[in-house]
Amino acid sequence: MTDTTADFLGRLTAALPPGTVIPGPEAQDRYCHDWSGLAPVRPLAVVLPRSTEDVATCLRLCHASEMGVVPQGGLTGIAGGAQPVAGCIVLNLERMSAVEEVDTVMATMTVQAGTPLATVQAAAEEAGFAFMVDLGARGSCAIGGNISTNAGGNRVIRYGMAREHVLGLEFVLADGTVVRSLNKMLKNNAGYDLKQMLIGSEGTLGIITRAVLRLQAKPTSVSTALCRCADFEAVLSVLKGARKRLGPSLTAFEVMWPSFYDTMYGGLPQLRRPFGNGGGIHIIVEASGFDPGRDAERFEECLGALVEEGVVDDVIVAASERETRDIWAVRESVSEYGRVLGRIVAFDIGLPTTMIGDFVDAATRELAARWPDVRPLAYGHIGDSNLHLVVNVPSAGDHQPEHEIDDLVYGMAGGAGGTISAEHGIGLVKKPYLGRSRSEAELATMRRLKQALDPRGILNPGKVV
Amino acid sequence: MTDTTADFLGRLTAALPPGTVIPGPEAQDRYCHDWSGLAPVRPLAVVLPRSTEDVATCLRLCHASEMGVVPQGGLTGIAGGAQPVAGCIVLNLERMSAVEEVDTVMATMTVQAGTPLATVQAAAEEAGFAFMVDLGARGSCAIGGNISTNAGGNRVIRYGMAREHVLGLEFVLADGTVVRSLNKMLKNNAGYDLKQMLIGSEGTLGIITRAVLRLQAKPTSVSTALCRCADFEAVLSVLKGARKRLGPSLTAFEVMWPSFYDTMYGGLPQLRRPFGNGGGIHIIVEASGFDPGRDAERFEECLGALVEEGVVDDVIVAASERETRDIWAVRESVSEYGRVLGRIVAFDIGLPTTMIGDFVDAATRELAARWPDVRPLAYGHIGDSNLHLVVNVPSAGDHQPEHEIDDLVYGMAGGAGGTISAEHGIGLVKKPYLGRSRSEAELATMRRLKQALDPRGILNPGKVV
Repeated sequence: MTDTTADFLGRLTAALPPGTVIPGPEAQDRYCHDWSGLAPVRPLAVVLPRSTEDVATCLRLCHASEMGVVPQGGLTGIAGGAQPVAGCIVLNLERMSAVEEVDTVMATMTVQAGTPLATVQAAAEEAGFAFMVDLGARGSCAIGGNISTNAGGNRVIRYGMAREHVLGLEFVLADGTVVRSLNKMLKNNAGYDLKQMLIGSEGTLGIITRAVLRLQAKPTSVSTALCRCADFEAVLSVLKGARKRLGPSLTAFEVMWPSFYDTMYGGLPQLRRPFGNGGGIHIIVEASGFDPGRDAERFEECLGALVEEGVVDDVIVAASERETRDIWAVRESVSEYGRVLGRIVAFDIGLPTTMIGDFVDAATRELAARWPDVRPLAYGHIGDSNLHLVVNVPSAGDHQPEHEIDDLVYGMAGGAGGTISAEHGIGLVKKPYLGRSRSEAELATMRRLKQALDPRGILNPGKVV
Repeated sequence: MTDTTADFLGRLTAALPPGTVIPGPEAQDRYCHDWSGLAPVRPLAVVLPRSTEDVATCLRLCHASEMGVVPQGGLTGIAGGAQPVAGCIVLNLERMSAVEEVDTVMATMTVQAGTPLATVQAAAEEAGFAFMVDLGARGSCAIGGNISTNAGGNRVIRYGMAREHVLGLEFVLADGTVVRSLNKMLKNNAGYDLKQMLIGSEGTLGIITRAVLRLQAKPTSVSTALCRCADFEAVLSVLKGARKRLGPSLTAFEVMWPSFYDTMYGGLPQLRRPFGNGGGIHIIVEASGFDPGRDAERFEECLGALVEEGVVDDVIVAASERETRDIWAVRESVSEYGRVLGRIVAFDIGLPTTMIGDFVDAATRELAARWPDVRPLAYGHIGDSNLHLVVNVPSAGDHQPEHEIDDLVYGMAGGAGGTISAEHGIGLVKKPYLGRSRSEAELATMRRLKQALDPRGILNPGKVV
């Protein structure tokens, strides 16, 4: 640590309330890495603000000294967006965790950025509403991280990404300026909508400290089914038919290729398999409604028609909460990859929906040509054009050929007009590949924005752009 | 015209295809003003590009010569966003009007920016979908203008603003850089989502040339009713009850105070009045569904329950398309203000929903205290927190005390935590009042963005920020 760095940390510690700045060597290990699998990095210090003013004070000092700041929420990102950077400090918002207000007439909730997603969901439920951003890491991830990465999840097909659930934001710019834009109204065209710029920018343009969230009416019925189809063409027919018949009631459409489905059931014997080993592509279809006397019947009519049309081969409609949980269990078992596969290389690709079936086949073929024992697991939110692909080469053990696999898959996705990140973001891990799905003009415009709002490049340095 | 200006126009004319640049004195009058009511301004020239390349060429030359450019679509904006600026050129995209592609699997449409909204809607219908941005000027306004102003309209309560219907954009920056970001996927988190910055920036950050629009499944049933309520408290109960019972089927909730309703029926005798002269606040409630065998019944159950609860005093459910048109006719008669009222001062305020009733009463009182013969007409998209207020002082004739009325109403709206523009934008007309609903930190951040993307200030100069 140079004298200058020591001086800086001294000033920072003095400017903030006692206990806010934890020197790097004393910080808990958990601040040293996110879920990206990158090797831990110990920051110079971990700052744990309790208020927006603490965040502003910290950024003002960092800006003055050109000190890099890595913002952290629940650390569940897998693109390395919250991964510490050597020689920088970490600003973790976990102490700014509070539901400040639920407005039942406006159907909004005001929360601090460090609030866990599950806490937000529970507070919405308690007030008779629903917060419709949902993903597997709900218990650990923070709402500020969900917003700064524009999180997706299982119900995007009906409710959209995190962006569509944010009405207002308070954030702090790199120089410590607090921009308080806690709008509660559905419509506000008074000048530029600044929050849009912050959402999805992964902490590189400002640090989100508070948010006004949009709540939804809580559906009074939920119907869930597991369908089996012969091939991807049939899956597309099911999607089209379900959209036409269920309209906005269609709230999830999760597709699992045999590679995913059979591998996860094979590796996790505690899961109860709804069908026998019949092969085919499985789909979880969920509909949510507001007409409980009729919704279940309508859902079954829709599925019945799809069976009659010959696009669905087998279907099970959940008759209880337990059966619903059983249907979702395999889809939610993705946190068990370590146990089932060992080390993996994970993708979160977006592709025009019609091309996804061919892409899975082609990628599987190309990967196998290069690594004969490869296990590429395919599944995803196909209604949103989002394919998850998880790759493991058993013979490579702990040394997966990550870069080679990345090159192959991102090259194919870029060539097909897809995006290298549908929902997980760019962070550190995908930064080298951003040019595969963005043009030079797009990248240059992103850099202009970054330069305008963070001219000294202190916010999450080296990430995204 | 100085020599320099003449030289510039010569270069511009030479660089673009013949017939693209119309010298100002020869330009049709319609390019000299939008629907804001501001006095016409003749631009130096009107440029009518046929391609993105034409737009890029024009901007490159304007940037080099620091020539101001006012982008125009259908010229239907009422905030002056498309109003020419003296000494500047106008860039009207009316010749870039084409539906280039409808993708029925992705449910997207790719269009050129000058395409009229009604053309977009019709093309969507023809393909079996619906494009859900809708507003009174649909026959004249251009989709590029709808996007650059983040237009709202009648179905925001269910489908959101224009922003939520845009998946991709192609736009040209001030220096002529073409940013082609014609994404079709629902999810794309590959770096900053640049289109979000362009949407709603009223042509001050770039000029939109193409868009990929998101289409919706076309509902197979539409039910419409006119309700009469005693007061605003009852209106809020109807909104809450309709949301709970109809969920996402609730697609319009248009409230009309007696000041609007009685004045428009009184002034337009050709309109057929569904109820007698009973007073009260009227609401148009519309539900759209995908279960035609059941939807109408469910709609009537919902309204029946609201009558039984005593929050709705009278209700008429449209039994035919003709009755539906009759119910909407008065709400859509807003283009007839000239005939009914003469000159008006129009507001498009956003307020927390619960405060709207008191705001209407207070504004009416304050206006009457100052101008005893004032006619303040109130109506709006209350489910979206959006109140329209139209003010006319009969005794002032053609010289309405516009600034005094603006000061009074915007002062009240700002004081109540509202926005001075829910959907119409800022343009020229509302620019002096932007500080009433945005903080100095917000305004400074907007100016930073403007400076970053248009450092010479050539795009729609003097507008918004």
